[in-house]
Amino acid sequence: MRLVTLEDIRAAATAIAPHVVRTPLLSFGSDFWIKPENLQPIGAFKQRGAVNALSRIPSEARARGVVAYSSGNHAQAVAYAAKTLGMPVAIVVPSNTPQLKIDATRAHGAEVFVVGITERESRAYELVQERGATLIPPFDHPDVIAGQGTIGLEICADLPEVATVLVPVSGGGLISGIATAVKSLRPNVRVIGVEPELAGDSAASFAAGSRVHWDAHDRARTIADGLRAEPSELTWAHIREYVDDIVTVTEDEIRDAVGQIARRTRVVAEPSGAVPVAAYLNRDLPAGPAVAVVSGGNIEPKLFAELVGG
Amino acid sequence: MRLVTLEDIRAAATAIAPHVVRTPLLSFGSDFWIKPENLQPIGAFKQRGAVNALSRIPSEARARGVVAYSSGNHAQAVAYAAKTLGMPVAIVVPSNTPQLKIDATRAHGAEVFVVGITERESRAYELVQERGATLIPPFDHPDVIAGQGTIGLEICADLPEVATVLVPVSGGGLISGIATAVKSLRPNVRVIGVEPELAGDSAASFAAGSRVHWDAHDRARTIADGLRAEPSELTWAHIREYVDDIVTVTEDEIRDAVGQIARRTRVVAEPSGAVPVAAYLNRDLPAGPAVAVVSGGNIEPKLFAELVGG
Repeated sequence: MRLVTLEDIRAAATAIAPHVVRTPLLSFGSDFWIKPENLQPIGAFKQRGAVNALSRIPSEARARGVVAYSSGNHAQAVAYAAKTLGMPVAIVVPSNTPQLKIDATRAHGAEVFVVGITERESRAYELVQERGATLIPPFDHPDVIAGQGTIGLEICADLPEVATVLVPVSGGGLISGIATAVKSLRPNVRVIGVEPELAGDSAASFAAGSRVHWDAHDRARTIADGLRAEPSELTWAHIREYVDDIVTVTEDEIRDAVGQIARRTRVVAEPSGAVPVAAYLNRDLPAGPAVAVVSGGNIEPKLFAELVGG
Repeated sequence: MRLVTLEDIRAAATAIAPHVVRTPLLSFGSDFWIKPENLQPIGAFKQRGAVNALSRIPSEARARGVVAYSSGNHAQAVAYAAKTLGMPVAIVVPSNTPQLKIDATRAHGAEVFVVGITERESRAYELVQERGATLIPPFDHPDVIAGQGTIGLEICADLPEVATVLVPVSGGGLISGIATAVKSLRPNVRVIGVEPELAGDSAASFAAGSRVHWDAHDRARTIADGLRAEPSELTWAHIREYVDDIVTVTEDEIRDAVGQIARRTRVVAEPSGAVPVAAYLNRDLPAGPAVAVVSGGNIEPKLFAELVGG
């Protein structure tokens, strides 16, 4: 299997630069920073991978547009990227998607198809067939991984003395890209994945040395609703190659981290985005300067008020 | 009176670059961005002016240290700047300062003197006399103004097509610096100051064509506790020279803006920092791309939870 390379990630950085926020590192405490990807226009890192994937579609296929199926940040990311690059876009969402998210996706100019939960994938493939459109997967694609990897380049550029990088793990696209970039540039930096204990399939897989499957129903228990997917063959290959460890955090630790991030760095993190900070605050980690990637900030206002008000 | 120049601000940009966050513009909506100065380590723009002022102290005077009197962001800014540049620092605070802020100032390594409200200034001058230290005023100083002006350089660099810049007005150091930078680089951009209606002394002064004094008791009514000061002769001279208008917003508009900023840009703004966004959302402004400077994010968690939970 061909893994994404540092050169792929450098090319992605050039392609996406005009369309993403160059996020700064924000000081959380002594020798600890966050990389606030919640500050991207759609509120999550996924904009990087989506813009890169769309920018690599051959010009003759662009007019036929793109398709994605997602109820979450990936839908926004693809819709935003398509608007930015002037391509038609269709998003397939399950019928239990909050109206707010459907409206937000439409606001980016996307055509939205609401279908039963089990029909998402098949409806998306139908659209691809009918239109000759290109399907953009949320993580299982080298161009998406390369886009997310640009975060790793920026961390190494902004904090050359970094010793540890903490990254949330779900489908694994984010950590695959970041670990590839960081380990290629600085092999001695430790890249550590973080998961909710209640969706700890990747941590279990890492400990076991091969992929362990957890039931989707079990993974859905965590408040970190962006971390309920599991790695693909492609992302798992990157994780095995480049990641040093995967640790887990509890639900209470995640909730507390959302509040601490708001108070200390003045940004709004969703529970999934707060997971690596929870690990920094509660686990024994290697000494030296550390960066936690705060992957997103799309959280219901009521829940955020509850977590931040303490 | 000598006004701060574009060259002063460019020199400040070079001096402070290693010690401040290069804040990105964050998209709030169509053709509207915020400049999130709440993302500075101390949670406010004042770090820029403080670092610049300290960096310009002659080397022979550095060991004698600096003094500031303030209960707010200026105390943190000077303490942080002194720690960063390795200089001794004493901060004089009034006895009604929350313990949390005193602790935060001490955490930066500052010596803190707690005195009666009316003795702040005299105690600070005593320390200056006793130690040969340098007093760092919160806004009434060209080096402080030049430091704040670096925000204007960054806005023009990041959004060359900007048409309007909205800036909170209190003592006037922030808008003096930004207006000098922006108008020197792009004379056609409109720089508009924003104040709470309840502390609208500068708007009244601007309308009258000369400085109007409002009683401190009146200015203290607004929730925007960082905007209760009034311009000095020096900052007023910059405002008269470079600012196009000063408008006011209501308390309800300020409270609503704090929530909208959190939901749309995922950052935590204090009421004072939200004031220019309130103006954008509620006042008729010139057409074209606009940037609101969100000056700070130091807000009590309980109040923030209340404003964001809607």
